[in-house]
Parts: sequence; structure tokens; C-alpha cells
Amino acid sequence: MILLTNDDGINAPGLTAAYEGLAGLDDVMVVAPDMEQSGVAHSITIHTPLRIRKVLRDGHEFYAVNGSPADCIKLAVFELIERLPDAVVSGVNYGANVGVDTLYSGTVAGALEGAMLGVPSFAFSLDYREQLDFSAASGVVRDIYNHFIGRPLPAGSLLNVNIPALPAAELRGVMITRMSSASYVESYEKRVDPRGNAYFWITGSLEDAERQPGTDINALANGFVTVTPLHYDLTEYRVAEQLGGMGAVIKEMRKS
Amino acid sequence: MILLTNDDGINAPGLTAAYEGLAGLDDVMVVAPDMEQSGVAHSITIHTPLRIRKVLRDGHEFYAVNGSPADCIKLAVFELIERLPDAVVSGVNYGANVGVDTLYSGTVAGALEGAMLGVPSFAFSLDYREQLDFSAASGVVRDIYNHFIGRPLPAGSLLNVNIPALPAAELRGVMITRMSSASYVESYEKRVDPRGNAYFWITGSLEDAERQPGTDINALANGFVTVTPLHYDLTEYRVAEQLGGMGAVIKEMRKS
Repeated sequence: MILLTNDDGINAPGLTAAYEGLAGLDDVMVVAPDMEQSGVAHSITIHTPLRIRKVLRDGHEFYAVNGSPADCIKLAVFELIERLPDAVVSGVNYGANVGVDTLYSGTVAGALEGAMLGVPSFAFSLDYREQLDFSAASGVVRDIYNHFIGRPLPAGSLLNVNIPALPAAELRGVMITRMSSASYVESYEKRVDPRGNAYFWITGSLEDAERQPGTDINALANGFVTVTPLHYDLTEYRVAEQLGGMGAVIKEMRKS
Repeated sequence: MILLTNDDGINAPGLTAAYEGLAGLDDVMVVAPDMEQSGVAHSITIHTPLRIRKVLRDGHEFYAVNGSPADCIKLAVFELIERLPDAVVSGVNYGANVGVDTLYSGTVAGALEGAMLGVPSFAFSLDYREQLDFSAASGVVRDIYNHFIGRPLPAGSLLNVNIPALPAAELRGVMITRMSSASYVESYEKRVDPRGNAYFWITGSLEDAERQPGTDINALANGFVTVTPLHYDLTEYRVAEQLGGMGAVIKEMRKS
């Protein structure tokens, strides 16, 4: 059984696109946020109770949860099905999740939850364009899933897949990429409310859009479906080695 | 100037502990969430406007923001000071951020924002005990900051520091560690509201608490201050190599 979630919410067209792409490959269980959750990153709901509601969509029974994509995966696995699914799919997100946006992405967090459970996991996102067009996305979801599900990745890893906003015939292929680490220059639009108090809206753009081949940002801009293998271990091993290696005790600081 | 944030909010005793530890080392600017933000992970506020409010705490001027730790760092850097700080410190969180909890941590996310800006960055967290006792934490913050600020790490990395809930004299030293990847077994406590509808509270415990030396969980339990170098590049390079390497185009999928 494939467990499907997203972060744009249960009514998002990208969820339908993923569902249609996966339908027939295996049973698909949909457990998704009841509202849009963009920018929630890997949040979990601790301070408010979670509720699960059955929703009928096009004759299918979906589950809506008042939480994040990570909440949906946890609740589905530990409450609804009480076993591990065969795969976790998250998306199709409206808007690319490439570069450092990967870290803010609820879509990726849903798939990271799957990876943390040791299950083959996929995040799918569609690049922005003025028009919402998921027509090619279902086919990409199906093809990528079919290609990789028989080639399991090491436990703890997942594939972050981004799809250019192009008709299927114009896609240039599927490329293995790395997460670009180009950083954002944020700017905030300052406004003043009717009572004279300032407030700020976040805007911002990538300072130095990545030009290097092999990065997700570059390949996506060049019309490729990008497949970036991710893992959830944030340890920077090279730095740990520089500091004396794992388990080293810093002698100068013994009395700290 | 040191930019200080946290995720327990502007009134949390851990923020005061960090402030006191850093005071005198450099100017400290505090920009912190106006409310507790635990479990927000690396979220950013997109759909509601942010507000900044000056708050007096023990004669010091702090800034309170109605957002996440990541929002606080971005807003401070791009609106309030309009330059890069010399360091970013996040914490001291009440509760350890070790193992996979690192991924859910707003405290770590605050420091990751600093790392993304290329600034030396630190996250500090104190292990739970029944009593809230930050007495040793200020000294640890000061010692760790002093030790590492003159030994800059590669840009993009940060130190995730966890402090045992022990009196200063009982701390066994400072150990370099890796993030444990032991996974959670969640459970949800199901309750029924007065109208007969079910709701769920998340509980959960680490299935297989990490026994291996060198992990943050193990070292913290053994009384060491743990220093785990982290980075924000989630790419799993080994898997990318298995799949043909960065920039490889998957030939079988050319027509996807």
C-alpha cells in the first residue's frame, strides 16, 4: 500500500495528480492536511489535538487531518493502518522544492517521515508557472515511482523529485542532482496598518541562482525532471573529523 | 554582534541563561518569538504578516516577533540590523534536541538560518529533568562559544550543543558526537470530546535508544555536553553516486 500525503491540503489539484499517477500500481491511501500547510517544514503538532475526518473525493475515501504532512504520516502509520506502508509519496506540491527551499518544505518533510520509518519515500513538486497545469505531473509520478520502487534505496534516504512546468513532450529527461546550497536574500515589505503599526510580509529571492550543472535548480531550469537523493542525518561528518572525530572529548574544556 | 534567538519564546528562562552566558563577550541582540514555538521546525511565516515589538527584560531591550525562530533570524538580519551578525546563537532550549528530534527543532532551525547566511552558528539545548535548572547552562554557553568562535567552521555548518541536566561540577566534559538516527515509535492517545468526536494527542518514544558511543543520545545520557556539527545540505551523495552521479540522465526514462 502506498501512503500519499501533501502540504497544499486535501483539496489541492496536485494531490489528485499524484493519486491518478499512482492509481493501479498499488492500493493508495490518502491522508492529507485539511488546509494548506506551505512553509510548515518538518513541524509536528504537540499543543493541539489532532482530528481525522473521512472525505469523499471523486468516489474515493480520503482522510483529512488538521495538522502538517509529518503529522499525517505519523498518524496514518501509528493509528490508521498500524503497520508500515510499502511506500510514502508526498505531493505533487504546487511550486518547486529545490535548493534551500527543501528545508522549508512540508512536502519534503512528509517524505522524510517515510524515510525515517525506513520506507521507500518520494517527494514530488511542480515548478511554478502562471497557470496551474498538472497535466504532465501524473505521468512523471507514475514513471519515477515505477522506475525506483524496484531499486530500493538505502533505509533513511528518499528521492526529492521536481518537475518542470512543461508539457510532457517538452521534458528533456530525468537527471540525478544535488540540492543547491545557494542562499536567499530576503527582503520584507513593510506596511502600516490603519492603527499606525508596522507589519512585514516576507519576499526574497535567491541571491545567486545556481548555475552549476548537477544542481537541482540548474537542471530544473533547463527542463529536466530532477531527482535529488536526500537523507535525514544532518551530521556534518567532515567537520566532526576536523574536531577530533566522533566520541572525541575536548581536553581544554574538561572543566566546563 | 551576536544575534540570539530561541523557540521557547521571549519569556523563557533558557533565553536569559544564554543571554547571561554571552553577555560581555560581544554585543548581544535578542530577537525571539513572542510565544512558545516548540515543534515548529524550520517553518517560515508566509501567509500572515510579521510584527516586531520592543520588550524590556531586566533593563535590556529585546525584540519579540510573532513568528518562528527562522523568521526571527531573517527579520533581524534583513530588516533590523541590515548586515550579518558575527554569530547566531539559538537557545537555550528547554529539552534536548538530539537524534531525529533535531529535525523537528525550532532551536536548531534558528541556528541553521545562521549557517545558511554563512555565519558561525550554535544551537543550545538543555536535557529535561523534573526541575527547570539552567544554572550550569550559562557557563556552558560561554565556554563553548569562546572555544569555537576563534576556530571558525566551514560556511554552512553549525554546532548543535546539548547539555545534561546536571550541576556544573558533575558534567563529564564536552564530546564531539553525531546525530543518532534511531527512530521514534509514535503512539497517539485517543480521546473523545463531549460531542462524541475522537481526537488524538501525540506521545511516542525512541524505539531503540541509541547505545552506540559517539552518538548525541548516548553521550548526553552519560553526562557529556555534546557538540554535533550539522549542515543544511540534505543531499545523500552516496545514493547519488549509486544512481550514476550528479548530472547523470537516466536513459531508460528519456521519454518520461
